[in-house]
Amino acid sequence: MEERSPLQNRLERIVFGTDSRAGRLFDVLLLWTILLSAALVLLESVHEVHVRYGRWLLAAEWTVTILFTIEYAVRVWVSRDRRRYVLGFYGLVDLLAALPTYLSLFVPGTQALSIIRAIRLTRVFRILRLTTYTREASHLLLALYASRHRIIVFSFAVLALVTVFGTVMYLVEGPAHGFTSIPRSIYWAIVTLTTVGYGDIAPRTAFGQALASAIMILGYAIIAIPTGIVSAEIARQERHRRVLSCPTCGAVEVPETSRFCPQCGAPLEAA
Amino acid sequence: MEERSPLQNRLERIVFGTDSRAGRLFDVLLLWTILLSAALVLLESVHEVHVRYGRWLLAAEWTVTILFTIEYAVRVWVSRDRRRYVLGFYGLVDLLAALPTYLSLFVPGTQALSIIRAIRLTRVFRILRLTTYTREASHLLLALYASRHRIIVFSFAVLALVTVFGTVMYLVEGPAHGFTSIPRSIYWAIVTLTTVGYGDIAPRTAFGQALASAIMILGYAIIAIPTGIVSAEIARQERHRRVLSCPTCGAVEVPETSRFCPQCGAPLEAA
Amino acid sequence: MEERSPLQNRLERIVFGTDSRAGRLFDVLLLWTILLSAALVLLESVHEVHVRYGRWLLAAEWTVTILFTIEYAVRVWVSRDRRRYVLGFYGLVDLLAALPTYLSLFVPGTQALSIIRAIRLTRVFRILRLTTYTREASHLLLALYASRHRIIVFSFAVLALVTVFGTVMYLVEGPAHGFTSIPRSIYWAIVTLTTVGYGDIAPRTAFGQALASAIMILGYAIIAIPTGIVSAEIARQERHRRVLSCPTCGAVEVPETSRFCPQCGAPLEAA
Amino acid sequence: MEERSPLQNRLERIVFGTDSRAGRLFDVLLLWTILLSAALVLLESVHEVHVRYGRWLLAAEWTVTILFTIEYAVRVWVSRDRRRYVLGFYGLVDLLAALPTYLSLFVPGTQALSIIRAIRLTRVFRILRLTTYTREASHLLLALYASRHRIIVFSFAVLALVTVFGTVMYLVEGPAHGFTSIPRSIYWAIVTLTTVGYGDIAPRTAFGQALASAIMILGYAIIAIPTGIVSAEIARQERHRRVLSCPTCGAVEVPETSRFCPQCGAPLEAA
Repeated sequence: MEERSPLQNRLERIVFGTDSRAGRLFDVLLLWTILLSAALVLLESVHEVHVRYGRWLLAAEWTVTILFTIEYAVRVWVSRDRRRYVLGFYGLVDLLAALPTYLSLFVPGTQALSIIRAIRLTRVFRILRLTTYTREASHLLLALYASRHRIIVFSFAVLALVTVFGTVMYLVEGPAHGFTSIPRSIYWAIVTLTTVGYGDIAPRTAFGQALASAIMILGYAIIAIPTGIVSAEIARQERHRRVLSCPTCGAVEVPETSRFCPQCGAPLEAA
Repeated sequence: MEERSPLQNRLERIVFGTDSRAGRLFDVLLLWTILLSAALVLLESVHEVHVRYGRWLLAAEWTVTILFTIEYAVRVWVSRDRRRYVLGFYGLVDLLAALPTYLSLFVPGTQALSIIRAIRLTRVFRILRLTTYTREASHLLLALYASRHRIIVFSFAVLALVTVFGTVMYLVEGPAHGFTSIPRSIYWAIVTLTTVGYGDIAPRTAFGQALASAIMILGYAIIAIPTGIVSAEIARQERHRRVLSCPTCGAVEVPETSRFCPQCGAPLEAA
Repeated sequence: MEERSPLQNRLERIVFGTDSRAGRLFDVLLLWTILLSAALVLLESVHEVHVRYGRWLLAAEWTVTILFTIEYAVRVWVSRDRRRYVLGFYGLVDLLAALPTYLSLFVPGTQALSIIRAIRLTRVFRILRLTTYTREASHLLLALYASRHRIIVFSFAVLALVTVFGTVMYLVEGPAHGFTSIPRSIYWAIVTLTTVGYGDIAPRTAFGQALASAIMILGYAIIAIPTGIVSAEIARQERHRRVLSCPTCGAVEVPETSRFCPQCGAPLEAA
Repeated sequence: MEERSPLQNRLERIVFGTDSRAGRLFDVLLLWTILLSAALVLLESVHEVHVRYGRWLLAAEWTVTILFTIEYAVRVWVSRDRRRYVLGFYGLVDLLAALPTYLSLFVPGTQALSIIRAIRLTRVFRILRLTTYTREASHLLLALYASRHRIIVFSFAVLALVTVFGTVMYLVEGPAHGFTSIPRSIYWAIVTLTTVGYGDIAPRTAFGQALASAIMILGYAIIAIPTGIVSAEIARQERHRRVLSCPTCGAVEVPETSRFCPQCGAPLEAA
């Protein structure tokens, strides 16, 4: 293992740590730089802004990119386990945050890829110690994970439905009314079943409209299913979070605010 | 403290109070004047009505404004704690209800701001003693407040999704198909994910339509999450409301299946 | 009281009763006549059908109308309490079912009012003894009725939101972009908040689109509230329907399939 | 009963069985052939693909069809109870999977019917032993089945609503604004109530827009009803699934808070 200089240790505390004042300041500055660079990408894509402030945006873009490059180099230099950082999630994101601007020198139009920098914002949860929010997020993800089998089954059913409906509508309405191919008809069926309804393709024959009505009412009704699945799952989680069991009588479903067992009256130790 | 005249006391009972007959009558008249003035703002904005009845509307507008001005002056004059009324919520709203018409003399087109008067209607809940409705409203707000962390996390996830999808669609479809900038593509992604689907911008390439389909199905599925959150919260509130209270220690929030008080351990009589 | 002839009694059993064979047959014939007459109204309104089969439809329309008129006369003649029948719900509906055709002789275009005949179909529930369905319907209505205060509060909040958003959008976008008046802007806000999204009016300025995005996400989020309200109410009903209480130990929340009390073990009498 | 050759028995294990290696291989190959043939139907319908690769697609189509025909013949030959297979669900689907291509020789344009082959994919659940998914699917179907009465009642109410609203809108807006007939107006009402909102037909009069707003808010509110029904049903299922069984009488469906078996009264040991 190579010798670590005191500078490396000091920079490590600033760049990776969040417990020193300098470390906190660095994190907040980083946060604003990321937000600024994301805003740059959005503005760059607006034609009027590009025409009028293109030069300034380009300068700001390169400034941010060079800052990110320096930051990446420092992070690699000061990290104790370089391989783990470079190949880890945050290491790759930090690298990808700097690359697109360099890439745009050779392949024009790839600048929009810089939006990938927004992923760096997930650091903000760690930086600002938003533990309440991370816990809630993990609860929601857990509810989705626990419902994954049902959601997959439901998605397959939806895909089957739109395939069948799309094919039938292709036969009923035909290319003359905008249903130019089965894939496009399936796209229309998805637009309809999910109640989005762009109106770029719409049935014009009486039978097609009757069939479309059936799809709409179906879509309106089956939206109840994913909602029911997730509701039931969140409600179940809620219940489980609030339940202890009594060590004296073994009663379950004891609310977590109880101090005595509601079934046998024995005192409960604070958990 | 200045001397209060008997007229001040009598007007106070009428203007602020709701227990005398004159006070009730004043409140009801005020209610109708507010509704009338809101209707005036709506009608004023309709071109045909403005052309034909513009003079009448203007007269009515000024009548209402002068009435509101007099009312405001009286309220200031008769209130016992002027500072508190003038700087309080209702004082500011009462002032703002009269201002826009005067302002429109100097800055044309600001008349529409008079719609702010509608806020005065919240007084109606107090006037009509709609306690059932205020209680239900506070329950709903409580359910939303209790779910605030989850709703914020969910909103951030949605914002992240539409940013990513919007950027990708900008790259896929490009300005030629209406996706003229990343912010506009994000707007499109929101229109699609929330299943609104105006159709003012719609994907035209096969790959863009496939991606749009993915967003739609996602939007159709994740609407389950806020619904699940709020459902679970309301159901939890419901359960907690159906509780008994302990006759020994007075504890509330005792689940109705308990045989012993979960707070003090005293046996509960069957209700 | 006038003397009732045997014919009156016999016709009464057929027309009002459902226990004789002739009565059942009459009800089924009536059911089909009503469905046919509703179909006539729908077909009549289709231009191509009207042009080609107008004469036949007119003949059928008059046949049905005369049958309904005779039926109404018979019902009045044979009913024991004429005043109650004529002024009651079914009496009025029976009268209104026949009137529009006669009215169309004097006022053209009122024929479409005949669709009111469809209300007569509610008789079908009584005729076919669909008790399971009527019970479920009354459960659903009960859930809605129990949630009425919350639904009214929610509707007021939605109306307030669309009024505010509509007015702001009128100021932001203006008549040039289709937001020609405040009422029309409120209409647009409703179309957007409810995620219908016709696209007949759509914001075109950047700020208008940002504001519209806010409305969409809000509409997408607050749809959770009515759903949560009704879900919680139906779940509460479900629970209450399945619960007895133990006569020995007074335990509540005893599932209705239990034969012994789950709390004290005492046998439960069959309810 | 006819004599079965050893070849028949060996082929039966491969074609119908899933326990031998050859049987598994056959099933996986079949799975991919079905997916390929479905993709062929989709591609065939895209005009550009048809023009450029039409000959190849036709060849592939016939190859798949002949493979399916041979497979069907083999299945008939080797099955122990031919009548049951041929007239059963899978037998009919296997036959229908091969027919459309032959039919397209006589009736052009019927090729798209081949999409029916996708139904064969339901075999995949059996083949891949996706028991978790089949169980979840049956749970969801059970929840829908248990809610069928309510869903039918709800659907009838929705149909009644759109018929009434459609007729009124036909009278209010008239053919000049796109509401050319009552059936078409009902189609519009469905598009609006389900919040799809194509925008191909949209109200233009002030009164029509007010009425449309009412339908939208109604549609936005009553979507809560199917969701509430299914949520409550899934939650109920969830609760019933988390039960113990009585060690004395073997009764299932014992709620987990019970201390005595609700069926036989025997005390339950703490689990």
